[in-house]
Amino acid sequence: MCNSEIRQLALEAKKAARVMANVPQDIKNNLLNRMAEALEAGMAELLPANEKDIIAGREKGLSSAMLDRLVLSEKRVADMASCLREVATLPDPVGEITGFKIRPNGIRVGRMRIPLGVIGIIYESRPNVTSDAAALCLKSGNAVILRGGSEAIHSNTAIGTLLKKELQAAGLPSEALQVVPTTDREAISELLKLEDCIDLIIPRGGEGLIRYVTQNSTIPVIKHYKGVCHTYVDAGADFAMAEDICINAKVQRPGVCNAMETLLVHQDAAAAFLPRMAAAFAQHNVELRGCEQTRRVLPQIKAATEEDWGAEYLDLILAVKVVANMDEAIEHIQTYGSDHTEVIVTRDYFNAQRFLREVNSSVVMVNASSRFSDGNQMGLGAEIGISTTKLHSFGPMGLEDLTTRKFVILGEGQIRT
Amino acid sequence: MCNSEIRQLALEAKKAARVMANVPQDIKNNLLNRMAEALEAGMAELLPANEKDIIAGREKGLSSAMLDRLVLSEKRVADMASCLREVATLPDPVGEITGFKIRPNGIRVGRMRIPLGVIGIIYESRPNVTSDAAALCLKSGNAVILRGGSEAIHSNTAIGTLLKKELQAAGLPSEALQVVPTTDREAISELLKLEDCIDLIIPRGGEGLIRYVTQNSTIPVIKHYKGVCHTYVDAGADFAMAEDICINAKVQRPGVCNAMETLLVHQDAAAAFLPRMAAAFAQHNVELRGCEQTRRVLPQIKAATEEDWGAEYLDLILAVKVVANMDEAIEHIQTYGSDHTEVIVTRDYFNAQRFLREVNSSVVMVNASSRFSDGNQMGLGAEIGISTTKLHSFGPMGLEDLTTRKFVILGEGQIRT
Repeated sequence: MCNSEIRQLALEAKKAARVMANVPQDIKNNLLNRMAEALEAGMAELLPANEKDIIAGREKGLSSAMLDRLVLSEKRVADMASCLREVATLPDPVGEITGFKIRPNGIRVGRMRIPLGVIGIIYESRPNVTSDAAALCLKSGNAVILRGGSEAIHSNTAIGTLLKKELQAAGLPSEALQVVPTTDREAISELLKLEDCIDLIIPRGGEGLIRYVTQNSTIPVIKHYKGVCHTYVDAGADFAMAEDICINAKVQRPGVCNAMETLLVHQDAAAAFLPRMAAAFAQHNVELRGCEQTRRVLPQIKAATEEDWGAEYLDLILAVKVVANMDEAIEHIQTYGSDHTEVIVTRDYFNAQRFLREVNSSVVMVNASSRFSDGNQMGLGAEIGISTTKLHSFGPMGLEDLTTRKFVILGEGQIRT
Repeated sequence: MCNSEIRQLALEAKKAARVMANVPQDIKNNLLNRMAEALEAGMAELLPANEKDIIAGREKGLSSAMLDRLVLSEKRVADMASCLREVATLPDPVGEITGFKIRPNGIRVGRMRIPLGVIGIIYESRPNVTSDAAALCLKSGNAVILRGGSEAIHSNTAIGTLLKKELQAAGLPSEALQVVPTTDREAISELLKLEDCIDLIIPRGGEGLIRYVTQNSTIPVIKHYKGVCHTYVDAGADFAMAEDICINAKVQRPGVCNAMETLLVHQDAAAAFLPRMAAAFAQHNVELRGCEQTRRVLPQIKAATEEDWGAEYLDLILAVKVVANMDEAIEHIQTYGSDHTEVIVTRDYFNAQRFLREVNSSVVMVNASSRFSDGNQMGLGAEIGISTTKLHSFGPMGLEDLTTRKFVILGEGQIRT
């Protein structure tokens, strides 16, 4: 696929985006419900297409984890359909007008939510992203360009074909959903330069992909490098509560970005809390790596190195550090954290307030598990991603994050003097 | 200045930003008022420094328009002080918490406004930007790195020195305000790569500067290329109102980005409206360039070429086009516009609603002059710039646009099941 073809595809998406921006909510909801039915009815096309990817993946020697992410089953297709139906039930942010204020001269100034326009999603492996991302982008009135990994090209193309048919059947432009029909990497670098057609790029995948996209894009990028989440157990915390929160944050699903990676403990709590916490972690086979002070209380554990403080283990491993006070805890988080999610467990009102105020990660919690850092858990509905950079969106991103606001001014003939 | 020095300066700003993020509102307001006094008291330092720039500019053969923008007078310094004082009176967006919602499990999820961190401003000529931008960035709890044009280096350095002293006097880190003390262009390209230190880049200047910054930055950029603003006069509009609005939009200050550049007239209004409008424009020496249909009514005017439709004249010149209906007006705006500001003059309720909904420029108005597209006029207070791209901010940008929101979650021991 040559550069001019990629450009053509993006221009078509831009044209379609103008139409999508003004589609009423009920038509968009019907569309998503029809798309869900189409996926379920299309098993006979989806599973064989996926089988081609699996065979090619085995030949290429993909790891079993990679192959697992790639595989589509009846259950997984049903989950994709559920996601489409769930997005159909979410409130549509487009058109909402807020904050009308009357100026001294009588003009009224408000802000109206509008779609961003064209959103490019660059992702790896999981074919469900094709329909999940399409659902969120279309519901919020955008067009979407999907560029999945080469290993999933047959699956993604088959899903895209089914979904595009439903756009057409609804009398909407099928170009609002573009699956880039090529696996060559140059297509990405070309896409990233089309700032006159594409309004936002969201990369989803490993750190390598995300860095590549950031370095090469002239289009705004919303990204999430990693989640190095901290839990700080304050002096005088309720230890039973702290234990429950820490176990949940580390053990419930260790392989995800909102799992705890470092535990910080106030020095006055260390002697009493660390032994009971270590016993609880031992029951769940969590390996602890501690600072010097931690190892004075828990001499049996491994010493943490400098690398451990910045590590995103995504595994049953936890770095543990004793801090002199909350200042040191906050300093540690700012130095080694990833701006993702941080938790304080405390009974102290003032410490809770200060932690909330001074820790500027995308999600900051008091007395709750970091595992709640998730669009669904937080009431945003399905999420398109998590942003750990501050522009436009910070934290879990829902439908509203795929929109922007324009100003609307209602006058009755006013002119400027 | 070598790359490592630029990096050092940005690292210092990042460290200072952490302090600034938590400075209470009254201390920030006092600081800005003190800075205003310092500028007024510092005339004896500012004017001679500016004189150096003026002499160098004359030697370099700068145009008289460039020299005019560069010059500092007592009046201009007083205006800079006024701007600092005005920003001190604006409400501080930092810390505001909105939208607390209780989830089924009892956790409360809200969003708190926080500063972006470190903001880089890259600008040309006008030395007042140094103090105006500093005021807005510091008030919103950010640190700021200012890289002005080489032609204003002595003025900017002198302003920076005075303002930094006030930070120090207030017990705040003077590194929160950095004036890049060099005129070499490589300093810009180095700054644009420091994504680990700088959160946002705002270029202010000509299209060349803005394109250079966009192409070379790995940091998010908020930009404004140009303002090609349209006024659409609908069939059945109040012609007296339309005339007032059009004269104001074109003539009141033609050299700015919110002045009207193209007038669109419904074909049913053309025969009656265009002659009276042409007569009114003639009184203000506005040159008209019309489409074929316009010239059937106004044969005396010049024919518009394809270039005229996309032109930002910034002068007493106006392109005029007759359109068959509102569809054609909207299509024309989408094809040739710059997403800045568009106006409809109409009596028709449905056309007003449709124009507001379907024209996705940053400011869309009914029955008012495009000259109101300005942060101050719209009630945002002083503006840091205007964004014509949709990410993060769209339209005039005030203090709130220099902040973002983090999620805050208040729990009482909840864990995820």
